[in-house]
Amino acid sequence: MIEGKNIIGFGLSSEGTVGIQAPAAATLEPLGPLFYAATMAELNQAVALAVAAFKVYRKKSGVEKAAFLEQIALEIEALGDTLIERYTAESGLPVGRAQGEKGRTLGQLRLFASLLREGSWVHATIDPAMPDRQPLARPDLRSMERPLGPVAVFGASNFPLAFSVAGGDTVSALAAGCSVVVKAHSSHLGTSELVGKAIQKAAQTTGMPEGVLSMLFDAGTEIGGALVQHKDIKAVAFTGSYRGGKALFDLAVKRAEPIPVYAEMGSTNPVFVLPSKQTEATAAAYVGSVTMGVGQFCTNPGLMIYSQNAEFKNHVKEKGAVAAGGIMLNKGIKAAYEKGSAHIAEHIQILAEGPNPESNQAAQAKIFEATAEVFLKSPVLAEEVFGPSSVLIEASSTDQMKEIAAGLEGHLTATVLGSEEELVANAELLEILEQKVGRLLVNGFPTGVEVCHAMVHGGPFPATTDSRTTSVGTQAIYRFTRPVCFQDLPQALLPVELQDDNILGIKRKVNGIL
Amino acid sequence: MIEGKNIIGFGLSSEGTVGIQAPAAATLEPLGPLFYAATMAELNQAVALAVAAFKVYRKKSGVEKAAFLEQIALEIEALGDTLIERYTAESGLPVGRAQGEKGRTLGQLRLFASLLREGSWVHATIDPAMPDRQPLARPDLRSMERPLGPVAVFGASNFPLAFSVAGGDTVSALAAGCSVVVKAHSSHLGTSELVGKAIQKAAQTTGMPEGVLSMLFDAGTEIGGALVQHKDIKAVAFTGSYRGGKALFDLAVKRAEPIPVYAEMGSTNPVFVLPSKQTEATAAAYVGSVTMGVGQFCTNPGLMIYSQNAEFKNHVKEKGAVAAGGIMLNKGIKAAYEKGSAHIAEHIQILAEGPNPESNQAAQAKIFEATAEVFLKSPVLAEEVFGPSSVLIEASSTDQMKEIAAGLEGHLTATVLGSEEELVANAELLEILEQKVGRLLVNGFPTGVEVCHAMVHGGPFPATTDSRTTSVGTQAIYRFTRPVCFQDLPQALLPVELQDDNILGIKRKVNGIL
Repeated sequence: MIEGKNIIGFGLSSEGTVGIQAPAAATLEPLGPLFYAATMAELNQAVALAVAAFKVYRKKSGVEKAAFLEQIALEIEALGDTLIERYTAESGLPVGRAQGEKGRTLGQLRLFASLLREGSWVHATIDPAMPDRQPLARPDLRSMERPLGPVAVFGASNFPLAFSVAGGDTVSALAAGCSVVVKAHSSHLGTSELVGKAIQKAAQTTGMPEGVLSMLFDAGTEIGGALVQHKDIKAVAFTGSYRGGKALFDLAVKRAEPIPVYAEMGSTNPVFVLPSKQTEATAAAYVGSVTMGVGQFCTNPGLMIYSQNAEFKNHVKEKGAVAAGGIMLNKGIKAAYEKGSAHIAEHIQILAEGPNPESNQAAQAKIFEATAEVFLKSPVLAEEVFGPSSVLIEASSTDQMKEIAAGLEGHLTATVLGSEEELVANAELLEILEQKVGRLLVNGFPTGVEVCHAMVHGGPFPATTDSRTTSVGTQAIYRFTRPVCFQDLPQALLPVELQDDNILGIKRKVNGIL
Repeated sequence: MIEGKNIIGFGLSSEGTVGIQAPAAATLEPLGPLFYAATMAELNQAVALAVAAFKVYRKKSGVEKAAFLEQIALEIEALGDTLIERYTAESGLPVGRAQGEKGRTLGQLRLFASLLREGSWVHATIDPAMPDRQPLARPDLRSMERPLGPVAVFGASNFPLAFSVAGGDTVSALAAGCSVVVKAHSSHLGTSELVGKAIQKAAQTTGMPEGVLSMLFDAGTEIGGALVQHKDIKAVAFTGSYRGGKALFDLAVKRAEPIPVYAEMGSTNPVFVLPSKQTEATAAAYVGSVTMGVGQFCTNPGLMIYSQNAEFKNHVKEKGAVAAGGIMLNKGIKAAYEKGSAHIAEHIQILAEGPNPESNQAAQAKIFEATAEVFLKSPVLAEEVFGPSSVLIEASSTDQMKEIAAGLEGHLTATVLGSEEELVANAELLEILEQKVGRLLVNGFPTGVEVCHAMVHGGPFPATTDSRTTSVGTQAIYRFTRPVCFQDLPQALLPVELQDDNILGIKRKVNGIL
């Protein structure tokens, strides 16, 4: 069932001579088959098909695109246990997580389908002609969002379904009307192929053009780099490390035609705990959030800041000492976790370590401790260590908390825990934090990113390369569109969303009024 | 009244030792006084004040910001003839144009004020909590657009009012809630000072924080470059040449924290004429559009493509031979026009030249001619020559018109002239062009950019560095904002736009429904 071939349009392709192994996360044993790394010729073929497909796909109605997305969801469901088994073997993540993430992926596809069926997302804006205006007549002006063109999507290691081949980036690009070329993540090649074929089948079933999605395997970074530099690719979406995301950004801005790169590069998601919440329950929730999914979430709380409270620190120590680690997503991530946490250990002490795991591929949970003074002087402590580790920082006052907040770079999230009274008294802390993040939350933990309309999963650099966007939720669609204005076009030549009779019944802005 | 000093916060500053002349466009004679080029210390002071101002200004209500913008309009009106006289002397443009552009500038300020008073522009989006949802409760999630931070605005040479100190970039940044540091354009230093002081006065009158706007003079590119690279500047807006805009873009993406650059770099705005419109009236309108404002518009039609029609070509030749040239904005622009049109003349023939102007600073109108074959083989012919010149291209068929359209780079506009029947028959031509531009128009000319809600003054690279935005019209505000999501915040700590009681009565999206 898994063939190891690149998915190019409606075909499979294996022209290369380089084979890639798909190893099991827990044992590093190959799972088979050998996957064919794409050649440059295959890459060019995939992009050429994406260009051809875009010409047709960009004109598909919202209802047609919705049917396509819903069919993708059905095809993924139809993969049943095969998908779950491959997912768990490749990622080392448990069955429950696989099922949860599958549900999220299906929900995401259906949410975007509902957005398309409703149709108002295009921001249709109409300023009708004013032929009698003095001193000059006003022409008829109508604008709406239109798709950018073929998009390159990079699968993320830590969400083999929800941020991979049929994940948030792909679904928002397809919803926008863009064709997509996916670079499959090397950590879950088999899962990628299964999902890629599901999309291929859905495209055929619903009459979408060949090339609306292709998927390539890459033995290193050659294919990914060439994809970003291909003249016909018009935008890039990526979730992963700072190093990876920044490298793609640098390639894209140096092109003859620079293109937008939406790289979500993670962050340390600071959590500030005000006195009334410095409790055993908070300590337990914190350690739970740090170790959830073996700490492999972009929203993992890598920093917690509290005020002097020996009891609270003891609670964290106790919870940390029994915190579960687990198998990491791949060998490279495990090695980086060991290196990163060792680097932190050179600067500050460990407060608590979870039980030493049995497997070589498993990470041990680690909570470090530092004073605010030390933290403020050691930029390295603010860097993300991807995995189940975090730094507990003792501040001497809420003023010092504010000082820490003011010194932060961009993050995906920041959190404040406190009673309503404390929160109101520390409004300035929240205000500082708001300017550093895409999502500000209180009395919760940042892990758990709801896929909905109001979600912003983004934030100022270096959390992302484009703070004006989100990679989760329906607003993610605007990463792949641009506004186009039509002046004095005959009704028949206008997109249906802008025609006078508004047969779709969408919300439009006319003369500035919605 | 004009002192030649940099405007820094609520003060004037003249610490530098380098003086800049403000020459009259027509005579190149200095208009006085000598203007002080800003020093790095003055630049840093302006940005420090912008940072301090942003902390306060970002929290001003829509009504407060609207009052500020309206007061700027009043202060500019109060400048009366002083402004018009300085404008015409510095730019060489006539009084009628000065008055028209002033009207546009005031209208623009008031349009943004009305947008702020109405308030729905923030895209308030609310997904209320679902505490009983299974398997997981949903938190309360609310998002809206928030300002980016201090913005650098570069005055444009060709709109000394509407795209300069109080122009479209400044007004949209101020409306968004950003503080602004303007680099005044060296072609209209006195006009810049007058307008800068008007804003300064309006800020004081309406209780805006010091530093909400500062304005610096630059003897070369040193201050402008340093401004773009200043760590506290969060976005850049520019209108001008490709060389200038691309240089700023390259500086901005190489920063430790890359920032968005909205550079509108012009284009040649191709106009396709189908047979029924190949008339004397079209020829007259074309030549009029080419020479309007001495051809110094970003939307100047630098290319017209028609099918073989000797009569039409003769009409263009006749109109071109009597086309008025005029004084250009500055010496550099005049020299570039001579060089650019001479370069075109090395490749193709001149069809018509207007009367030879008397002044050295005036440009002569020039219409060149080429066949489609020659045009398709000569990329240089597609490059913008800023001024009253254009290339008339003879295509052998509408298929060849499509071939030309398909080969175009990004432009601000494209135009098709034809009967409704012809337009429908050539729908594919319009479809190709739509993908190349920010605005597609029929049966008009691209010069004349309406400031309204539906306008898109933008387009794919190299017309701009960010096709996802517009620099004219109310949607320009989104260049200076990013979405922020608030999770489970107490009502009192939410921005008023997101609070349950919606006292502003703005349109909001709740559970995906507007």
